[in-house]
Amino acid sequence: MKNLLKEIDEVLLMGPGPSCVPKEVYNALSCKTLGHLDPYFIQIMDEIKKLLQKIMKTNNRLTIPISGTGSAGMETCFVNLIERGDPVLILVNGCFGLRMQDMAARLGARVDTLEFDWGKPVELGKVEEKLKKNSYKIAAVVHAETSTGVRNPVEEIGKMLKGKDTIYLVDTVTSLGGIEVAVDAWGIDALYSGTQKCLSCPPGLSPVCFSEKALDVIINRKSKVPNWYLDMSMIIKYWEGKKRVYHHTAPINMLYALYQALLLVIEEEVKKVFQRHMENHKKLVEELQSLGIKMMVEPDFRLPMLNAVYVPEGANDAAIRSRLLIEHKIEIGAGLGPLAGKIWRIGLMGHTAREENVNRLVKALKAVLKR
Amino acid sequence: MKNLLKEIDEVLLMGPGPSCVPKEVYNALSCKTLGHLDPYFIQIMDEIKKLLQKIMKTNNRLTIPISGTGSAGMETCFVNLIERGDPVLILVNGCFGLRMQDMAARLGARVDTLEFDWGKPVELGKVEEKLKKNSYKIAAVVHAETSTGVRNPVEEIGKMLKGKDTIYLVDTVTSLGGIEVAVDAWGIDALYSGTQKCLSCPPGLSPVCFSEKALDVIINRKSKVPNWYLDMSMIIKYWEGKKRVYHHTAPINMLYALYQALLLVIEEEVKKVFQRHMENHKKLVEELQSLGIKMMVEPDFRLPMLNAVYVPEGANDAAIRSRLLIEHKIEIGAGLGPLAGKIWRIGLMGHTAREENVNRLVKALKAVLKR
Repeated sequence: MKNLLKEIDEVLLMGPGPSCVPKEVYNALSCKTLGHLDPYFIQIMDEIKKLLQKIMKTNNRLTIPISGTGSAGMETCFVNLIERGDPVLILVNGCFGLRMQDMAARLGARVDTLEFDWGKPVELGKVEEKLKKNSYKIAAVVHAETSTGVRNPVEEIGKMLKGKDTIYLVDTVTSLGGIEVAVDAWGIDALYSGTQKCLSCPPGLSPVCFSEKALDVIINRKSKVPNWYLDMSMIIKYWEGKKRVYHHTAPINMLYALYQALLLVIEEEVKKVFQRHMENHKKLVEELQSLGIKMMVEPDFRLPMLNAVYVPEGANDAAIRSRLLIEHKIEIGAGLGPLAGKIWRIGLMGHTAREENVNRLVKALKAVLKR
Repeated sequence: MKNLLKEIDEVLLMGPGPSCVPKEVYNALSCKTLGHLDPYFIQIMDEIKKLLQKIMKTNNRLTIPISGTGSAGMETCFVNLIERGDPVLILVNGCFGLRMQDMAARLGARVDTLEFDWGKPVELGKVEEKLKKNSYKIAAVVHAETSTGVRNPVEEIGKMLKGKDTIYLVDTVTSLGGIEVAVDAWGIDALYSGTQKCLSCPPGLSPVCFSEKALDVIINRKSKVPNWYLDMSMIIKYWEGKKRVYHHTAPINMLYALYQALLLVIEEEVKKVFQRHMENHKKLVEELQSLGIKMMVEPDFRLPMLNAVYVPEGANDAAIRSRLLIEHKIEIGAGLGPLAGKIWRIGLMGHTAREENVNRLVKALKAVLKR
């Protein structure tokens, strides 16, 4: 039978994730599979926790990867923290804020939403007002809105929540490993991320982190978590303690890949990794502007790893993206929701954030925009 | 920094899964990552559906892998089919029947359970009686109870349910690819499986399959599925149709591995794969009996891929398993729940089911049991 894997062309992944994967991570993926209770594998699990803690700047012991992609991490945070009727505030300025809203509502939360324009950041004044009027069990925001390229003021919202009972829940799917995320200093209680963005590991896992305050909420639930697969009270027994208790069979080889990807970030130095993202972002913006392509987001709130640009007037969105992929083996992302057809999303995530990639994209864009 | 991946020793995986992974599947894992909406990747997705249909003997169009391990497949089936208050019958004779019960109850189902001794199969007479007295929205059973090594009479239960409105839900995590599973002929409406058992792909995905009857139930739900990540009504739009709609970022490289693993089964021929499992099982049983080790399950209901044997009298369960792993690089499984300390679970799943592996285990067992 024909084997499609034999004809996979390497694509330069400059979309909203997955990002390019370093060869060390590919090698890690194909290391020999061990059993999920093998003592050697448990050592690797323990190292993954420590590496995640470093990159997240946290001492939270409950810092582990969930066996599903980023949205499974979002689901893990909400399903473990929400009980029916709980008041939840969600700050929405893009697709992933909307996803939070949908998810929390499905779980029976009383969801209150504060909406902002797509492409603009969450406004602190409005959040403050809302928090004065109401009290919430959870307040949730997306750090790096992958649908718009906007960085939301996570640290500042953390300050507003300080001293309150509210659980502060933050989506760092696209930010972690590309810009600073400081869980403890910013007062984040529950966080989820993804592997396929700035960590440059293929998709499949979602690192999550819970503070002691969040863990207390989980432990003192009145009802069982209505999701067996993502129930942290059971998962924790597999990830902690001397005697590990089987919950579900962990995705062994994906965990190897995450371990290797985290090692690479730590070895390069987290600070330098952030710097590399920022420098290449600046170069990209400069080059795009010289082509007459306009950025959607104001400089102060731009994400270095996700660059939202307006599709140039007269250019055919889908045709250009398709030509970039077919003729130049470069993938960039389309707009989502109300921004479909209006913007492109150019990723500079993790291993992708390199000067040669910026140059290659700019050259290709020049070629396809010419005619 | 020390890299633990560099010192992974290859272990002969003869436990309850993961099983040994063929080199072609390791190679597949490290193929270059494509975007989740790349047309070439969508071709691979389409092939995966076709290959799964063949191995499951079904024409059900909704036959796809879920982005999580086997228990996520279980959760997918229950969470999409159950609405609060629905009557559900669960046949329990092991750990995974209990897991079904727990999961369905968390979702607000009215769960009725029929329990049988661990190590014995589900009794058809009792099921028939139960089905005469009550009507259920769902009746669920585990085909291959991984905790006991028992094969349950899935085909026969299917006959009892024929013509009823009841959705027939079957766990084939351990059976698929090792013994016959005939979704259409047996009248199965919802099925989930795992990749790390007889398909010999590392853990991380769960193939599921829904009949048109089950799909009708999903489409006509009164309430939204209380689980965003596993909501089939959205996932289906990513796996079907001309224009694929992004739901969550698919675990690309794991899907490569599953594709390759399925290809290998089809290339060897499904029938021959079953035969290989059965022959090696028979050889193992013979060899174990010659060592004085007794099988827990009666011959008629034994699974070829999961052999439950009593820990020999006087032998230290944990110490023997540990010596097998450390001295002989062979993993076998411990007993679960009430069988902990009493049995070992010896897997002959997928790529593991080979004569040389049976011989290696028997030789190692002889050595460690001697003193």
